[in-house]
Amino acid sequence: MKKHNFSAGPAILPQEVLQQAAAAIQELDGIGLSLIEISHRSKEFVAIMEEAQQLALRLLGLENKGYRALFLQGGANLQFLMVAYNLLEHKAGYINTGTWSTKAIKEAQLFGEVEELASSKDKNFSYIPKDYAISSDLDYIHLTTNNTIFGTQIKELPVAAAPLVADMSSDIFSWNMDYSKFDLLYAGAQKNMGPAGTTLVVVKESILGKVSRSIPAMLDYRVHLDKDSMFNTPPVFAVYTSLLNMRWVDQQGGIAAVEAQNRKKAELLYNEIDRNSAFEGFAAPEDRSIMNATFNLSDPDTAALFDSLWQENGISGLKGHRSVGGYRASIYNAMPLESVQLLVDCMQAFEKKI
Amino acid sequence: MKKHNFSAGPAILPQEVLQQAAAAIQELDGIGLSLIEISHRSKEFVAIMEEAQQLALRLLGLENKGYRALFLQGGANLQFLMVAYNLLEHKAGYINTGTWSTKAIKEAQLFGEVEELASSKDKNFSYIPKDYAISSDLDYIHLTTNNTIFGTQIKELPVAAAPLVADMSSDIFSWNMDYSKFDLLYAGAQKNMGPAGTTLVVVKESILGKVSRSIPAMLDYRVHLDKDSMFNTPPVFAVYTSLLNMRWVDQQGGIAAVEAQNRKKAELLYNEIDRNSAFEGFAAPEDRSIMNATFNLSDPDTAALFDSLWQENGISGLKGHRSVGGYRASIYNAMPLESVQLLVDCMQAFEKKI
Repeated sequence: MKKHNFSAGPAILPQEVLQQAAAAIQELDGIGLSLIEISHRSKEFVAIMEEAQQLALRLLGLENKGYRALFLQGGANLQFLMVAYNLLEHKAGYINTGTWSTKAIKEAQLFGEVEELASSKDKNFSYIPKDYAISSDLDYIHLTTNNTIFGTQIKELPVAAAPLVADMSSDIFSWNMDYSKFDLLYAGAQKNMGPAGTTLVVVKESILGKVSRSIPAMLDYRVHLDKDSMFNTPPVFAVYTSLLNMRWVDQQGGIAAVEAQNRKKAELLYNEIDRNSAFEGFAAPEDRSIMNATFNLSDPDTAALFDSLWQENGISGLKGHRSVGGYRASIYNAMPLESVQLLVDCMQAFEKKI
Repeated sequence: MKKHNFSAGPAILPQEVLQQAAAAIQELDGIGLSLIEISHRSKEFVAIMEEAQQLALRLLGLENKGYRALFLQGGANLQFLMVAYNLLEHKAGYINTGTWSTKAIKEAQLFGEVEELASSKDKNFSYIPKDYAISSDLDYIHLTTNNTIFGTQIKELPVAAAPLVADMSSDIFSWNMDYSKFDLLYAGAQKNMGPAGTTLVVVKESILGKVSRSIPAMLDYRVHLDKDSMFNTPPVFAVYTSLLNMRWVDQQGGIAAVEAQNRKKAELLYNEIDRNSAFEGFAAPEDRSIMNATFNLSDPDTAALFDSLWQENGISGLKGHRSVGGYRASIYNAMPLESVQLLVDCMQAFEKKI
């Protein structure tokens, strides 16, 4: 029996994507070879990479707007470094909304001045800072759109002349908006895009080439763009499975349709968190994430009972991150409404039992 | 029908490894979840990572000798950079035996002085340089043990006081030797270890921490060691499939048994290249690789006939790299002797036809 997978990442993928990925490991499209034993220069894989890059841009509404898509390795952590290496000449502004923003700031400080424009550290990152000033001399502004650990999400973007750079690792392809507000966005695949092992980078080419330092080849966006993500051997399986998942998003009707479903799931869960006397939400209500819902027990001593209840019902991956405690329900694109309903049913059954 | 896969990389893996990897995509060991949708902090994946690290050391005979194994991302290309970032303070010596050595040199030059100790560029890298002098003031010596493109392999290692660093991307786990001669070795997985997407790094901890520069977290071996390859989300599928393949090597009887089989395959093929009047070997005979055999047609005008012959026989991936032309038969660990025999049969049939 398949579990109901609320893992924060690596995370749930659609069943049909898993089936197609498994089939391709045995044989890719009737070519007599496995997906993972063909050259990345083969016509089959070149077509996969091209489709993945094009589909990423199309889903985000960024075709023909000066953007290019790359599939790289190293996750968001390597992007913390690459963003600064490629863009930070004098000073950059960072908005600190949690663990990942904090790590991004630390890496950037090796390359130039970092101004923390705003931070919600004072309240354990349970809210999104608003109404902060933005200096006019910034090389770029960096933010994390969704904070997987704390369950908050930025809903209004800062308006400024400097290029806007975003870590969208946990909400890429989950909400419909004007993505051309960003000049560079990146996302580790392992939440809403695919398996761990690849990172989508979407960049407006015009912002590159402006720093004076020498950039090592593997860290230089222009090198990867020049080779269409094939400067080195790409992570074939992770790119292919991300493509399968992007095709799935497309088949659902694109990001707008997926967002509508995501909002239904989030509403169902947050309504229960607010209604149910046994639970308290962690994140400020206006800043709640539609991807990761964080909540705690009103009475922590009842944890053993609640844990056994959801585990008996085939729910998996609900434990909160150690920075927050309690529970975190990650309800990414692939999570069915039925699984969220099951969790809500468990929460209601729990309330009656205590 | 399954093809006979002579691809240089990503490359052939044992059929049973492909079957096991495909099964794990559907469900990992009866846990009700796919391998690629579980947290990397789950007990299941932590056990996979630990076994992979331990088995790599055991296969190489490096247990309890001060070495640690890491599974990282970014391929050999990122290692070109990380080696220099972590080890190059003043001057390093590089042996230039081909395309990958040349790239490694270029990246290292960003961080300090690089002395090219020897090079075979004068003859299109068709041989391994010998009898070169080694300066006594080197931070380390770097070499590429096997040159995938040119089909040469280093059979005698330089003897020097400086730490020895090796790119073993295309011959890791293929030959039995005293691996403790190396202080750091690395290998992109996609030839002899697994699918594209992870890199094995085996490092003697005592050589680290000696450079004065600040090292970004993702490029710092000590950061990855401190977190047991889990500083960031590891490439779960590539690590697991590499583990499956290392288990296969172990079941064959370890590296010594695999090497014996590899030597049989190489002997069969090189004997035919030398005997057959229609072909000429590319690499110097004493430096020939047991992993990648490079050869050209005596009469290039006969290419169409030879190409149709091997293609009709279900052989795939035999075309040489553009730097060498002709043909390259990659006969990695997973390549059965029967497939090499089929290629030899094609070469003999071809000789009779022209």
